[in-house]
Amino acid sequence: MTMLDIVEINSSKFDEIWAVLSPVFKTGETYPIAPDATKEDGKAYWFAPDKRVYAASDQGEIVGTYYIKPNQIGLGSHVCNAGFVVAAEHSGKGYGTLLGWHALQTAKEMGYESMQFNLVVANNIASLKIWQKLGFDVIGTIPEAFNYRGEKHIDAYILYKKL
Amino acid sequence: MTMLDIVEINSSKFDEIWAVLSPVFKTGETYPIAPDATKEDGKAYWFAPDKRVYAASDQGEIVGTYYIKPNQIGLGSHVCNAGFVVAAEHSGKGYGTLLGWHALQTAKEMGYESMQFNLVVANNIASLKIWQKLGFDVIGTIPEAFNYRGEKHIDAYILYKKL
Repeated sequence: MTMLDIVEINSSKFDEIWAVLSPVFKTGETYPIAPDATKEDGKAYWFAPDKRVYAASDQGEIVGTYYIKPNQIGLGSHVCNAGFVVAAEHSGKGYGTLLGWHALQTAKEMGYESMQFNLVVANNIASLKIWQKLGFDVIGTIPEAFNYRGEKHIDAYILYKKL
Repeated sequence: MTMLDIVEINSSKFDEIWAVLSPVFKTGETYPIAPDATKEDGKAYWFAPDKRVYAASDQGEIVGTYYIKPNQIGLGSHVCNAGFVVAAEHSGKGYGTLLGWHALQTAKEMGYESMQFNLVVANNIASLKIWQKLGFDVIGTIPEAFNYRGEKHIDAYILYKKL
């Protein structure tokens, strides 16, 4: 695993972020955003007002990104939610684990008490392995919650980890 | 149980809806919205752009309200989410069950395939009884997910029903 430089960014970096997000969103395999989402849709989603966004760079090239946000408002806002994307051409290098580990530290520093994922697609084994390695528990299964590739409804898991 | 008239409304009715919501939100016992939320906060929450809102009236008086919205965007938008409030002074009359039943019909007519609740406070026994009577299953428990009355973190359940 090489060293990654992970920093908080704003939407002025979105061109580079979209180059990472777009091929992953287009698959319709892991994120709920419509596979034909435009760049503007993607920006509104990834940089929604309640999200803080981070980018991971390897020698100046952005290879991954994640966001952290409250999973609920008000009386549920001590639990955070997060989303992660590693550039397709950099998969298998352990970057997902590193981003996940970094997000856990960041969320704890922000004062969150736990992290929850609401829609981990059940056949996303690579992702599930990362989260279980980082100490997440599967706390529920939502039947047929994800319209995989827009073709078939498959189960999704809810994951949780205390910080 | 008296007959209720349940119709879709827009935010022009918010004065009457707020009279129902506000005392319930103020308790900090069931909804995540901050107990000190202003009327404007409440309007932005209950009439968020992705929600369709219904009001239940008994002889012209609004006694309850619910919303339906997609629980996720895009590839998760075949699952809906809903929220229900019955006026405190009308509790115990079975209105919650009637609103729940109506929302299930409405959601099915809208084309949703299932309904999911993300944050049912674990000590909200009255609500849990209604949902289990209407056929919902508890599909997960989120540890300490709700800051009850702003005083202590208690568990919340995730509920699910196929339509």
